[in-house]
Amino acid sequence: MLTLDFHPSGRHFLQIPGPSPVPDRILRAMSLPTIDHRGPEFGALGLELLTKIKQIFKTVNPVIIYPASGTGAWEAALINTLSPGDQVLMFETGHFATLWQKMARRLGIEPEFLSLPGDQGWRHGVQADMIEARLMQDPNHEIKAVCVVHNETSTGVTSDIAAVRRAIDAAGHPALLMVDTISGLASADYRHDEWGVDVTISGSQKGLMLPPGISFNALSDKAINASKSAQLPKSFWAWDEILEANKNGYWPYTPNTNLLYGLNEALDMLLEEGLEHVLARHQRWAAGVRAAVKAWGLEIQCQDPAVYSPVLTGVVMPDDVDADAIRKLIYERFDLSLGMGLGKAKGRMFRIGHLGDCNDLTLIATLGGCEAGMKLAGVPLKDSGVLAALDYFARHPLDADR
Amino acid sequence: MLTLDFHPSGRHFLQIPGPSPVPDRILRAMSLPTIDHRGPEFGALGLELLTKIKQIFKTVNPVIIYPASGTGAWEAALINTLSPGDQVLMFETGHFATLWQKMARRLGIEPEFLSLPGDQGWRHGVQADMIEARLMQDPNHEIKAVCVVHNETSTGVTSDIAAVRRAIDAAGHPALLMVDTISGLASADYRHDEWGVDVTISGSQKGLMLPPGISFNALSDKAINASKSAQLPKSFWAWDEILEANKNGYWPYTPNTNLLYGLNEALDMLLEEGLEHVLARHQRWAAGVRAAVKAWGLEIQCQDPAVYSPVLTGVVMPDDVDADAIRKLIYERFDLSLGMGLGKAKGRMFRIGHLGDCNDLTLIATLGGCEAGMKLAGVPLKDSGVLAALDYFARHPLDADR
Amino acid sequence: MLTLDFHPSGRHFLQIPGPSPVPDRILRAMSLPTIDHRGPEFGALGLELLTKIKQIFKTVNPVIIYPASGTGAWEAALINTLSPGDQVLMFETGHFATLWQKMARRLGIEPEFLSLPGDQGWRHGVQADMIEARLMQDPNHEIKAVCVVHNETSTGVTSDIAAVRRAIDAAGHPALLMVDTISGLASADYRHDEWGVDVTISGSQKGLMLPPGISFNALSDKAINASKSAQLPKSFWAWDEILEANKNGYWPYTPNTNLLYGLNEALDMLLEEGLEHVLARHQRWAAGVRAAVKAWGLEIQCQDPAVYSPVLTGVVMPDDVDADAIRKLIYERFDLSLGMGLGKAKGRMFRIGHLGDCNDLTLIATLGGCEAGMKLAGVPLKDSGVLAALDYFARHPLDADR
Amino acid sequence: MLTLDFHPSGRHFLQIPGPSPVPDRILRAMSLPTIDHRGPEFGALGLELLTKIKQIFKTVNPVIIYPASGTGAWEAALINTLSPGDQVLMFETGHFATLWQKMARRLGIEPEFLSLPGDQGWRHGVQADMIEARLMQDPNHEIKAVCVVHNETSTGVTSDIAAVRRAIDAAGHPALLMVDTISGLASADYRHDEWGVDVTISGSQKGLMLPPGISFNALSDKAINASKSAQLPKSFWAWDEILEANKNGYWPYTPNTNLLYGLNEALDMLLEEGLEHVLARHQRWAAGVRAAVKAWGLEIQCQDPAVYSPVLTGVVMPDDVDADAIRKLIYERFDLSLGMGLGKAKGRMFRIGHLGDCNDLTLIATLGGCEAGMKLAGVPLKDSGVLAALDYFARHPLDADR
Repeated sequence: MLTLDFHPSGRHFLQIPGPSPVPDRILRAMSLPTIDHRGPEFGALGLELLTKIKQIFKTVNPVIIYPASGTGAWEAALINTLSPGDQVLMFETGHFATLWQKMARRLGIEPEFLSLPGDQGWRHGVQADMIEARLMQDPNHEIKAVCVVHNETSTGVTSDIAAVRRAIDAAGHPALLMVDTISGLASADYRHDEWGVDVTISGSQKGLMLPPGISFNALSDKAINASKSAQLPKSFWAWDEILEANKNGYWPYTPNTNLLYGLNEALDMLLEEGLEHVLARHQRWAAGVRAAVKAWGLEIQCQDPAVYSPVLTGVVMPDDVDADAIRKLIYERFDLSLGMGLGKAKGRMFRIGHLGDCNDLTLIATLGGCEAGMKLAGVPLKDSGVLAALDYFARHPLDADR
Repeated sequence: MLTLDFHPSGRHFLQIPGPSPVPDRILRAMSLPTIDHRGPEFGALGLELLTKIKQIFKTVNPVIIYPASGTGAWEAALINTLSPGDQVLMFETGHFATLWQKMARRLGIEPEFLSLPGDQGWRHGVQADMIEARLMQDPNHEIKAVCVVHNETSTGVTSDIAAVRRAIDAAGHPALLMVDTISGLASADYRHDEWGVDVTISGSQKGLMLPPGISFNALSDKAINASKSAQLPKSFWAWDEILEANKNGYWPYTPNTNLLYGLNEALDMLLEEGLEHVLARHQRWAAGVRAAVKAWGLEIQCQDPAVYSPVLTGVVMPDDVDADAIRKLIYERFDLSLGMGLGKAKGRMFRIGHLGDCNDLTLIATLGGCEAGMKLAGVPLKDSGVLAALDYFARHPLDADR
Repeated sequence: MLTLDFHPSGRHFLQIPGPSPVPDRILRAMSLPTIDHRGPEFGALGLELLTKIKQIFKTVNPVIIYPASGTGAWEAALINTLSPGDQVLMFETGHFATLWQKMARRLGIEPEFLSLPGDQGWRHGVQADMIEARLMQDPNHEIKAVCVVHNETSTGVTSDIAAVRRAIDAAGHPALLMVDTISGLASADYRHDEWGVDVTISGSQKGLMLPPGISFNALSDKAINASKSAQLPKSFWAWDEILEANKNGYWPYTPNTNLLYGLNEALDMLLEEGLEHVLARHQRWAAGVRAAVKAWGLEIQCQDPAVYSPVLTGVVMPDDVDADAIRKLIYERFDLSLGMGLGKAKGRMFRIGHLGDCNDLTLIATLGGCEAGMKLAGVPLKDSGVLAALDYFARHPLDADR
Repeated sequence: MLTLDFHPSGRHFLQIPGPSPVPDRILRAMSLPTIDHRGPEFGALGLELLTKIKQIFKTVNPVIIYPASGTGAWEAALINTLSPGDQVLMFETGHFATLWQKMARRLGIEPEFLSLPGDQGWRHGVQADMIEARLMQDPNHEIKAVCVVHNETSTGVTSDIAAVRRAIDAAGHPALLMVDTISGLASADYRHDEWGVDVTISGSQKGLMLPPGISFNALSDKAINASKSAQLPKSFWAWDEILEANKNGYWPYTPNTNLLYGLNEALDMLLEEGLEHVLARHQRWAAGVRAAVKAWGLEIQCQDPAVYSPVLTGVVMPDDVDADAIRKLIYERFDLSLGMGLGKAKGRMFRIGHLGDCNDLTLIATLGGCEAGMKLAGVPLKDSGVLAALDYFARHPLDADR
């Protein structure tokens, strides 16, 4: 039998910024018997899923559901719309923006990677004015797409996508807008249609509260048109056959049935609660966690309050502290997983996930583990973060107006 | 579909002193398909269970497993050993001792209920000297049994059973010793054989971390002998037929198969961890929780530190505070269930369960919910209990010597 | 980890007359986290359960739900309504009627056990005329209750309870009518109120498709009145405190929460399908199975077609065949559990359960295993029972009129 | 709540050639809480999985595990080893060979599709002599790979891969050998190393008894070398980064954790039983099912007994019968899913899956449903297939020598 935890008792606190804790209700749905993916019940399920998922992306356009994890959906977005050698404009917001840019290069695309100086890009959101300026210098429209990360999981920054849309429009540029909101969907405000996004990429294991294994491309007509002439070779990821089969609720190849059961349950949970309530819940948690970091006297990785992420908060360690050693101590002593610093932030920060199937006391426990762990490791803390968050949560009830 | 929680997201914190949170591992074991209770696999399972359970009671004698909840095992203990009109000596330690005494009366037994004056019995353990004195005054041995509660769930007091044994012996009295450790087993130190207990009563939904529905009678030879001449009518609870059928791992009637799967898993978990480690874990949690209560400047219900319960702690509210209103507020705002004040303590206290499938951060979350709730309700608190507990847990690692 | 089956692959066929196969939907419901049995959600669940269960018994009167297996509910019925030395009239329909009569004797009641000569009682239903005749000879109403088994699980006979009611009425006798329909409820037609039953006893692990561990007493006003003066000592089983607590959806002691989750799901499943449809389903299966037994040229244990059970069929082996050896062979070779012959029928028959979470093909598989096993053991069979049943099912669709 | 079956009761019989029924043990394993995919427990799990999976492929070389369904692994095999315009030799064994060939074309590869005349290719295995002859005519080694399907799911033919290896060697040709055994692995004999396969493609939802969502590439050194110079753009599927991360039990992107729990359980189940026993089990089932088809007097789709599939059997309908109408009737009346005829066989056959978590009686039920359904539809049947299979299973015990 699989044994996954060396701690003697109690539930592990999984407070990384995804995979997020999966609610029992979803785990139970996933354990239903697998059915015939070509039978009538599957078709009905498929149609229902494909309809409900649109509400989460706030789109009336098709959403492609891949039986693959999120990185695959990055590839799908690029490969369906672009041709070898195409130029794309990307923006360095952190580790995941960097990885996506590397992927583009590997696929034979020519990404241009806009950055703020030093580590500033990793502590601020996408700078729409830099994008606008660059597009203005592209009168021949060599740039085929602008690719940005909405919620940068490595830093805790949620960029302003509407501003990017305005920048592209201001430049009068026809580039596609492709947005990764893998860790933002269903936790941070996101509006595929209103913001004029052409391809939105997302995944299952964050705000949707599912295990990893499903990913998404939400499309626009412009993106679908682009896919018809795009020349990168594609088959598994190709939208055309999927869109055709989806008309009847099926897929051209075997979909991952049991994860789709979980997706159906997740969508029901989110829509029953109401998406706006879900988003408010995350904003409130984030505010409580930031109150804790402030009380500790530590720095938040994101330096622009306008783009604080509602999904996760990066906590910067003092210069002489190894953040990974702190994380290890907290894991071993308090059965709590935190996100590590990635890429340029390796060893310098830890990330607290506050998304999905959580509640106030889960976060109090999490902050308690952080606080005790940092104290044990000798990190100087100004004041108690746990108490600050507890106070915040007490004074700001979730449903003050109910 | 069953919807059990109106809170929008996150796991409920069930910190009542039983039912305790059931580990996923046990819930999964319980969901195995039901099998033929007269087939060979069942017999093998039965024999294994009946052997392993003895280690938890620390006995080499038979342990009866009833497909019924704990109150049934109270009845079974009395009905198997006593005759109509028999006198028994009981001791008022709290609500459950009182209920057991009422049951005895209802069954046609004559209980004598020793008490300390006022509410002192509810704040101290069993007074062995009072038992000894009373037995000394019973030269004709009219008293057939001494019945005491080991861990009084309504108050958080764990009485000294070895002392009761010594008192009976000192009085040279042949009365049976019957002990209720429904909420003590597998959380508080308990030794059926060493302490010379004749019938130990226990249940599934506390330290064994199972849902309610299984209960136990651990026996002694003396108890089995007594059962042969006891005259209260008995059939379902009768030990004789069960002991006979148990020889081959079966029961005379249909046992509750799926809860037995859970019991098997629970026993494996406890024995894998080691029972002494389990007990140390509970002692440490209790110390942390008491540190919190002390920091708050509140009273603990148990006034004798020698008998503080490792399983639960009763927190006494100031005189003018309605403890049930506090509990309701904490439940609604923080998705946390606490035990209510029962019987004489109704409205005057709440009880924090710290047993079973918990860990340090679960308790930090629990204390956080208590602290915030009391503050919101205007209960004056001297200092932060959360921080006191966090500090205690940090400075006292569970496995300091590992 | 618990390993329950030595067969290398595939699902075990549990075709004993209870415990019946538990649907995944119920197993999943049972795996929800245990909640506070004194909290508001529990009260709501309790009230819902106590209302829905009445529809299954076809009563408007209270139904008591015990956290104990079915044998306990037998004891509860007797102990709540009778006094030491009371005479009751019981009827020998088979093994379970015999056990209930033994229990009555053990509890200090005086059962009179009406029987047909030889083994005829085990092959026919309750003879209402014998009951009427006996009651006519009791002008002083010494007989306090008539106790009969509705669906005799050991033989596959479903007695006519309405006829027993008429017999009591014809005799103008005030005896209570107590009926065991542990294996009949929700599979065979049963009408507590219409048939004037005073106490109906049932359990969870048959037509309700739950694991064992819950049992029932459905009451009448007359039974409740009788309980007020009945003198057998009672506490755990006592109706009065349970009825009082049930008013708010609670129990006086800890109920077995997770089995109640399963009960709630079971009730939803039965009521969604419609109880009449459920009953028709069982009648049809029984007819198919009897077609198989007839084709084999074997005897059915029940010799009166008017009282064939819709729940199980007893298949009598030729005189020189050890039915238990056949069952063992079938179990080992075909991963199929059948019911053994009990009591007077030991070794002479096996019992096929056709109840609960089955379908036509489950029963075809079952009959296939029986047929192949009997052939392997050299039992002479006239014709193929599998084909006869297959033909029956094909020619009699369940929803012919849908 | 998700409702997946309109049949009122009983378990659905999923007897399509994959997804196969998922054992409860695997569904339970999959419902464990998701953990941190960068934490120490995950690394240990990853290393264990990557070691155990090799035994199933019978290889000492690396096996890549993709968080994507099987079609993705087809793409991965091609894209990692080939360059735009490369010629590959494929063989038309049925629908899936045809789809793979279409994929190759879509990815910019030039497949040559060897076929037998008419529908013969769909009724026989790969013709190794045709491959040898073609390779002999390729002195310049323009052909970069030979791609064949081992177990053709659309027809029930299991080709002789060792013979293909011999053909390539006989031709002295350096082409890579790539084999799809998506539906053969862990059900049909397969030997990656012994047969000199360079890339084996497989998936989770067949012999591994998992839901769909995981797929595999087993590699050879030659394949790994080829991947270093292959020019098709690749990122998500690229072996290099995965092999690097796998060294420590991790993946370069988020793996689908909960399906990996299931995979771990599946591997334990297969290795505990013993792979050779698993294979013998499938061979025996296939023989029983073929005995049924023969008794019915119907044709098996596969016309060469040497390559009968142990995994599924294609049953050809008489010319005037619509196989899909039969399947629909069987589904609606008997709660049994069969595989449809695909591609050139559409409407002409149905496919019976006999793989994974089955047993004899599951197949008897399946054949019973087929037989009754065909009779209801008026398909003339010579004799009873159910009885023929039952007889076969009875006379050929699985463990005759145990």
